[in-house]
Amino acid sequence: MAYFPEIPAPDADAAAAARARQALLTKPAGALGRLEDLSVWVAACQGGCPPRQFERARVVVFAGDHGVAASGVSAYPADVTAAMVANIAAGGAAVNVLAEVAGASVRVADIAVDTAEPLSPAIGADKIRRSSGNIAVEDALTPDEVVAAVDAGRRIADEEVDSGADLLIAGDMGIGNTTPATTLIAAMTDSEPVAVVGRGTGIDDAGWARKTAAIRDALYRTRRLSADPIALLRICGGADLAAMTGFCAQAAVRRTPLVLDGMVVTAAALAAERLAPGARLWWQAGHRSTEPAHTLALRDLGLEPLVELGMRLGEGSGALVALPVLRAAVATLASMATFEEAGIGGG
Amino acid sequence: MAYFPEIPAPDADAAAAARARQALLTKPAGALGRLEDLSVWVAACQGGCPPRQFERARVVVFAGDHGVAASGVSAYPADVTAAMVANIAAGGAAVNVLAEVAGASVRVADIAVDTAEPLSPAIGADKIRRSSGNIAVEDALTPDEVVAAVDAGRRIADEEVDSGADLLIAGDMGIGNTTPATTLIAAMTDSEPVAVVGRGTGIDDAGWARKTAAIRDALYRTRRLSADPIALLRICGGADLAAMTGFCAQAAVRRTPLVLDGMVVTAAALAAERLAPGARLWWQAGHRSTEPAHTLALRDLGLEPLVELGMRLGEGSGALVALPVLRAAVATLASMATFEEAGIGGG
Repeated sequence: MAYFPEIPAPDADAAAAARARQALLTKPAGALGRLEDLSVWVAACQGGCPPRQFERARVVVFAGDHGVAASGVSAYPADVTAAMVANIAAGGAAVNVLAEVAGASVRVADIAVDTAEPLSPAIGADKIRRSSGNIAVEDALTPDEVVAAVDAGRRIADEEVDSGADLLIAGDMGIGNTTPATTLIAAMTDSEPVAVVGRGTGIDDAGWARKTAAIRDALYRTRRLSADPIALLRICGGADLAAMTGFCAQAAVRRTPLVLDGMVVTAAALAAERLAPGARLWWQAGHRSTEPAHTLALRDLGLEPLVELGMRLGEGSGALVALPVLRAAVATLASMATFEEAGIGGG
Repeated sequence: MAYFPEIPAPDADAAAAARARQALLTKPAGALGRLEDLSVWVAACQGGCPPRQFERARVVVFAGDHGVAASGVSAYPADVTAAMVANIAAGGAAVNVLAEVAGASVRVADIAVDTAEPLSPAIGADKIRRSSGNIAVEDALTPDEVVAAVDAGRRIADEEVDSGADLLIAGDMGIGNTTPATTLIAAMTDSEPVAVVGRGTGIDDAGWARKTAAIRDALYRTRRLSADPIALLRICGGADLAAMTGFCAQAAVRRTPLVLDGMVVTAAALAAERLAPGARLWWQAGHRSTEPAHTLALRDLGLEPLVELGMRLGEGSGALVALPVLRAAVATLASMATFEEAGIGGG
């Protein structure tokens, strides 16, 4: 069963035109470093040169609880997830504040928060279930639920692109969600749990040991399935992770550039690249978080983060701190004078 | 002779209040990584918590020619300096475009461009001379000129702060200016020329050898003077570098935070820290350029760059790409909800 159509590559002609235009700008060749590569990437994604500045950068925060939180893998109680969904909806979370600085807007989607009723019909429009299963002892989702969750993420990406989004960011919110995300990355990169388990939002040594044990038990149930991302999302992922997977892949289907956030989103992206090979060509890694599994996943995807600031919050926060770097890249290629325009002979 | 008064430290009480407020925000402790430290720094510089978002971030580009350009140390002819001053004044350079993205405005000052008349009276108001001397064979400045140039930079900082600037950025523009800047850093950090000489705007191997020889000859004339920054600026610096030195030091005198750009500005900042110890506490390093001497100077100043994107343009471009990171830090501490405000029990 193919979940996604073949992913097109970004436009090579637009990339070539962007490279050629870079050579005409009033600066030494290569002097803008990585900004030059990023400007070429944006032009290729947009299919034209010069690139256009992003007018509707859109963050979607995928919220979900995880039964494994009951196993003591997080520093916070599970009811913080619902409270933070309300905080995001009210505009008080880091993602809201950072989006304003970066010129983006925020949507929060309750995919699997452990409440009977979503905060609002709009926020709960794509809800799959109350909490995903405790992956230490049971599958996160049923076979039907994992497909429905991937479809939800795909639908959300379509809605955003149809509403004019020209840059997408996926964010995560969910107490305990670094445990399934780490398990997914370990399974897909064939890594030992102890090499990949981080402190999440800040657990102590005993919590770290419980988290490692949970991941080891979940990984055991995924043996011989490491090449089947849908099975992995069902067994050791969760509805929010599956929705993010659908979202990241569908961004590429819709030829829309996407900035990855931290470890949780990147775990979903790794699954998306397995389901839709080449999707990663439409993504940039926003930042490098302090979670060890994040670096493993980025290496597997061949992505180099734009910034490195020791963040580990999720919500899309790292991607939003990186977004101005992309804006800077676009602006230089779109708006700098050429040597000819400036009447300068060099170049 | 003391050029600068004793530099005050940023406000410790405001820093403590900022640390305390960080602990109340709706996020795990430490989850914003370096943004948290930066928010504390801004609060300390402003002397109050929560910090205020920068309303008048101001870039001053210090332009000057260097006689050493005649020695074949640059990939560009010297008349490009004057043409680029015109390009900056017209808004077509990288610094203009990046300033717009970052919410800053730009001033260009002709300190020592090799033209008889400045582009405009305002741009030439602080002009010291036509080009600085060729440091390979002669002193860059006379004893009177170096003092006048430091004073010019000090005066420019005063003008900007008096006009309401709440964040300063120094930028550089001058064909050949990485040669005196590298010489200054080598002299102040006691480094061998071959360990510090970079490719500037992009010279070939023969140009690199000429540049290294020029730096070695200039360094020879500075022996036994490495502890005298004014003498170094006079012998192997230049009027633009001396003005940037005065500017960076005076920002600290005026308790105004400043973001350093690349190697040339950081060479001047190193001299400013020698002249005004503690000034560095008012600075952040915007980025790490590809010039080897830049890393040496940053290490000496104890500053860690905010971004690392392989840039080597100057003009203030790297500092401007970093400015949104500082804005993000301010915004989180100033505008995020506290756990109490959000009605969340954790924290």
